[in-house]
Parts: sequence; C-alpha cells; structure tokens
Amino acid sequence: MNDGFEVIEKGYLTIEGNTIAALKKGFPETKTNLIDCSGKIIMPGFVNAHTHLPMTMYRGIADDLPLKEWLEEHIWPAEAKHTHEESVRKATRLGLEEMVRTGTTTFADMYFFADAVAEETAAFGLRGVMNEGILDFPINSYKTTREAFEKAYAFVEKWKNHPLITPAAIFHATYTCSKDTLLEVKKMAEEYDLNLSTHISETQHEVDLVTSQQGMTPPAYLHELGMLTNKNFNAHCVWLNPADQELFATKGAHVVHCPSSNLKLGSGIAPVAAYLKKGINVALGTDGCASNNNLDMVEEMRLAALLQKGVNHDPTLLPAREALKMATLNGAKALGMDNIIGSLETGKRADLLIIDTDNTFMQPIYDYYSAIVYSMNSSCIETVLVDGKVVMENRDIQNSN
Amino acid sequence: MNDGFEVIEKGYLTIEGNTIAALKKGFPETKTNLIDCSGKIIMPGFVNAHTHLPMTMYRGIADDLPLKEWLEEHIWPAEAKHTHEESVRKATRLGLEEMVRTGTTTFADMYFFADAVAEETAAFGLRGVMNEGILDFPINSYKTTREAFEKAYAFVEKWKNHPLITPAAIFHATYTCSKDTLLEVKKMAEEYDLNLSTHISETQHEVDLVTSQQGMTPPAYLHELGMLTNKNFNAHCVWLNPADQELFATKGAHVVHCPSSNLKLGSGIAPVAAYLKKGINVALGTDGCASNNNLDMVEEMRLAALLQKGVNHDPTLLPAREALKMATLNGAKALGMDNIIGSLETGKRADLLIIDTDNTFMQPIYDYYSAIVYSMNSSCIETVLVDGKVVMENRDIQNSN
Repeated sequence: MNDGFEVIEKGYLTIEGNTIAALKKGFPETKTNLIDCSGKIIMPGFVNAHTHLPMTMYRGIADDLPLKEWLEEHIWPAEAKHTHEESVRKATRLGLEEMVRTGTTTFADMYFFADAVAEETAAFGLRGVMNEGILDFPINSYKTTREAFEKAYAFVEKWKNHPLITPAAIFHATYTCSKDTLLEVKKMAEEYDLNLSTHISETQHEVDLVTSQQGMTPPAYLHELGMLTNKNFNAHCVWLNPADQELFATKGAHVVHCPSSNLKLGSGIAPVAAYLKKGINVALGTDGCASNNNLDMVEEMRLAALLQKGVNHDPTLLPAREALKMATLNGAKALGMDNIIGSLETGKRADLLIIDTDNTFMQPIYDYYSAIVYSMNSSCIETVLVDGKVVMENRDIQNSN
Repeated sequence: MNDGFEVIEKGYLTIEGNTIAALKKGFPETKTNLIDCSGKIIMPGFVNAHTHLPMTMYRGIADDLPLKEWLEEHIWPAEAKHTHEESVRKATRLGLEEMVRTGTTTFADMYFFADAVAEETAAFGLRGVMNEGILDFPINSYKTTREAFEKAYAFVEKWKNHPLITPAAIFHATYTCSKDTLLEVKKMAEEYDLNLSTHISETQHEVDLVTSQQGMTPPAYLHELGMLTNKNFNAHCVWLNPADQELFATKGAHVVHCPSSNLKLGSGIAPVAAYLKKGINVALGTDGCASNNNLDMVEEMRLAALLQKGVNHDPTLLPAREALKMATLNGAKALGMDNIIGSLETGKRADLLIIDTDNTFMQPIYDYYSAIVYSMNSSCIETVLVDGKVVMENRDIQNSN
C-alpha cells in the first residue's frame, strides 16, 4: 500500500538496517534472514494517532454512563488513586502487547508520566509519538503547570534523537488550559519543531463551553493563537462547523477520527466523509481503553468505513482503500512522519505486518483492500516488524513482559 | 448469563447428554471428562439470528457500491453462475468454521439448497434454523414457486425431529413474493408449527415500493395477512414507523438487528434502543458475507451497543448486559427456542463458550459483561460446545473439513 494503492503480486521486500531497501516482483537474490510470505499479504503497520496507553489499566472500569458522571465520579477519582509511575509502566506494557497483536506499529500517546511510557515503548520496540500531556490542574505526575512544562522540555531533550520515540507538544484541550499555557505549548513546539496535538470539538458541550468563554469555537480559538497549522493533529473533531472545516482545510490541520470512543461516550459521529471531501487529512485513533475499550485498529478502520456509509445512506462513501489509508498513511501525515512511515516504499522505515490469508475469516479474496478492511480480524496478523526488527513473529511477541 | 444476569463466580457446570445438569458454586463431585475452566468465563453461545451462510463464497466480491448496482450487476449474476449444490456445501463449511471460531452456536439461515446447508451444519455440529428461502423468481435451486414449496415441505419432513436442525418457514420479502405465495408460506408455518422469517423494512426504498403497491407498509401488509405474530422474526427493520413499531410490540413479532450490513449497504441504522423501550424483542444477526463481510457476532454485538449511544448522544443506551442479551437470549426468543437455548440454565441444552480472559485484550476485568461486549475479540473464544458436544477445543475444530 502506498499513496497510489499499488499492489505488487508475487513479489518480495528486502530490508537493510531499519529501512526498506527493495520492493519488487519476483524473488530476492540474497536469502539471509528470509521470512517466507508465500500466500500472505505484507502491508504497512497501522498508525494509531490517538491513544492514552496507560489508561489500559482503566479498561471497562465504568461503562454505559453519562460523560460527566463517567469522568468526575469514576475516571478522575481512579486516576488520582491509581495513576503512578509503576502502574503507568505496567498498563503501558499491557497496551503495547495489545497494539502489536492488532497491528499497530506507530502510535501517538497523550498521558502523564510520559518518560515511563517512552521507556517501555522503546524497550518493547514500537514507534511512539508522545510527551507529557499539559493541563492547568495538579495531577499525580505534576503539581503545577510550570512543573508540567519542565517535564515536557526534559522529555524533548532526552528523546529528541531516539530512533523510535518522537517527542511532540501535547496539551489536553482548549478548555483545560489557560491562554498563557497554550502560548507556551506553541513556543515549545516552535522551538523544537514539534508536532502539536490536542483533543478538540469532541462534544457539543465542549464547543458551547469554549464558544461562551472565548467567543469562538475551539478551532477558531486555536487558529487565533496561531496554533492551527499543518503540524497540528486533533483528536475527535466530532463537531466542526463549516467555518471550522474551512480552517482545517486551508491551514492543513489534521483530524484524528476516533469512532468507537465517540460512539461509546455518546459524543456523536464525526462527518469524516465530508472532511475528506474538503481535502482535510483524516487519520484514525482508538482513544484510550477507558472509553473504547480496546486498542484494535482493525476494528476501528472497519467501523470508520461502515459508519459514513450508514449515516449518510451512501454505500460508496469511505471505500476500503480510503479506510486503509486513514489507518496508515493519513496517520503518518498527521504525525508529520509520512517521509518515514505509513506506506511500504523504498527508503521508508521497515514498519510492516505479515497477514495470514489462509484462514476462515479472509477467504475468498476478490480484492485485497476489501479483505483487509471488511473481513480481516486481528488474529490474522501473524508477524510485525518495526524499524526493521521483528517485534512479533507468528503471534509470538519477542519482548513480552 | 440468564434472564436475571446472574453471575456464578468460582462455580462449575455439569452436562448430562446434551443438557446442562447443574450450575453451581464450588467444585463438582464427579470429575469425568472434566474441562478445567479456572480463570475463564463460561457463557452461552451466540445466536446469530440472520445469516445467508452459502454467501460466504461471495465475501468481498463487490463492495462500496450502490445497493441496486451491487445486487443487479454483481450479486445476482454471481449467484446465477456460481450457486450450485457443491459450492453451497463448500461455502457453508467455510462459514460454519468462521461461526464456531467467533462463538456462534445457533444460527438462522435463509438461502437456497437448504438441504445441503442443513446436512453440512448437522455434520459440523452447530445448531441451525433454516429452510429453502421462498420467492417468486426462478433461481438455481428451483424453477417455480411450486417447486420451491415442494423443496420446503420436503425439508420440514426430513429434518423435523433432528436434534440440531430446526425447520422454519422462510420467504425472501414482501416485495419478491405474491400474496398467494405469502399465504401459502403462512399455511405451511401453521401446518407444521414453524417459526416464520423474512427480510422487512430494510431500506426506505423497500418501504416506499411496498407502500405504493399494497397501500401499506411491509409490516402492516404482513399483519393484514395474519403473518405478523410472536412466531415471526424479521431481519433488518431499519425503517419501522411508529405504527409499525406498535404492531411489532402488540403482536410480539421479533426484530433481528443487522447493524454491520445496514451500515455497509447504506440502508441506515435501526433505532433499536427505541424498539427495546417499546418492549419489542430485538435479536442480532450478521447477515451474509456479501454485505458484512464476516459472521462475527462479537463484532456485531459491540457495534450494536456502540451505535445506539452514538446516534442518540446517550451513553446509557444499550448497556453491555442488554447487548449480550440481544446476542444470546433475545435471539433464542426470536427463533422460538428460548426454552432450550440462549442462556445457561439447568435443563437447557449445553450450548456454551469457554472464554480465555488471561490475555492482553480482556485484562483487567472490572465487570464481566463489559469485558465480553466491549473488550473481547473472537480470538479469546477458546472452546465451544453445542448440544453437549465439543465442537472446538482450544481453538482446534473437531469436525473441520
């Protein structure tokens, strides 16, 4: 899969170091470290562009509740009690295993104790984009906004040259950060040339709240602060009005669609077919396990494709190829990493999945894209390579804890 | 799981013949043929109340197309060319394997060459409700409506006392069968005390068509013919108007919700939370692989639960327990079989799943229902028993072809 949806049948792929060296029809000349993929599909790994990995510890802790009750009576008290560096490490490892089993090779995370998340991710061997999530409340990871920035700057300094970890600038939302905080996030992003991520326009309530406080919608407010750019990827975007959409399109800001979470919390369904039509880049994310309750990009991709057809009564919307692109290359673009990941192309990093097609779920195959998006489930994902290294082989995880 | 959502922790279940003999806390006295389920969940198998199993051969043959083009230019020509007894047998075996791997123990099928479907199902060991699907067009399985009825009557005579196969009366839809045909289906159902199944109100177009032809909606038309009863289960029901819903509620007719198929074909989203509120029994089905493109009730159950919350902006709708009930006991009720299947209760048939919870997908577990509906995927289903017999053990299928 690349931008042109090219399929190479009966071909091979060679890897030198962490890089795809060749991608051709026929048989390779050298046969060292050969993985026989006869009858299988090699495809790019998924890019999960919005997670809260340590929240895997809160999977299913409180379901089927109104958002306010869910957050204030369950999630926040649980976080105050249980979110510590050690629990973050443990939950991250659990989430990393789920991600590799379901085909994610790169994820963008937003949480606290980011240094612990990055250490576990690097040790496990997945590719992660992250930093300390900044907001103006004291939490277990920091007591003041100043301390949050200190952690964020230290994170950038520590990880900025790592092969797997890419620092970003991350703040929670426009309604949980003051204007000064937002401007300092912007400054940090510019100083270190970081991509910038947040939650935006997730619920109608949030849009109403920010509009009443700032006199404009959350995207308009971000734009006014000069923060809505093509280096900015925004989770949810369920409630972008036409002017917001126009801003996203002209500024090149990225949408991260999280359909499961938006459905489960009753937030709504982002009109992403319309966004795509306007030229907005739409990536895909699972969100965290407290609201999804899984990290399975296979399910997320299928759901994204089905929803737009059903809601708009148009089966031609978001066809299989577009859905797969959202889950791979569009995600790489959102993270500013499409020069190195998101598709299988010579010179890009070898982040890829080997799919077993000889099973009852995917047979028969008339079209590869259809089989991957509509029929495949995560148990068909056999082997996963990240940065040229095998992370899972025949469902056996190499660095499991 | 039973009607009261009872959970027995640290308990056991004994089977005598094909029947659940005991279900208790503690340890069993006899230990012959023991399956150790320590740390696992035993739950009722799923009831997939609407499939077209032989259409597994058309999985992914034509996606992302308008309904008319999909049906007339792809599905019907493919069926005319490829639907024969041998291909039906082969596709049925493929579908049966997918169903057992994804936890379905009972399904209601609607297709042609039903005798071949039943033979394969009985040999494989799943429980099936089926018969020749009747409509007024010549197809490969029969040339005239008369011949269709002859096949259907012969089917009932052959299978009426089989432990796994339950004959039903099945017609395609009110717009593909004449009034005389419908009345003969009714007569057959009454003569043999069969449950009666059809597709109804799947698309707005169908409702408009039938209303223009009959002067009333499809459910009102069925009601006028005396066919909308509590022995009648109806696939789709996306477009029931308030009067239709009232009819379903007062007559006790059953809805079979097929959310994936309804989304993928752009038909819409059935307002099943409203149906449930009105006291209508709502079961769940995957539909066939030409429109889903899988037979995975785990995905279907999760999707059903998520959709109602998202569309209605209310996260409290269709909580995990209700979704699981739709996928089990409600399905059994729809098929008129809740006296023998759909829940784990003493005296019911031993149709059950053993779920591995010690995996990265389901941990941690705060609530069993949440873990099953929102977190589990089909790879967590380890062992499946139908009618007291092991059909799959540790993911190994006993009667695989």
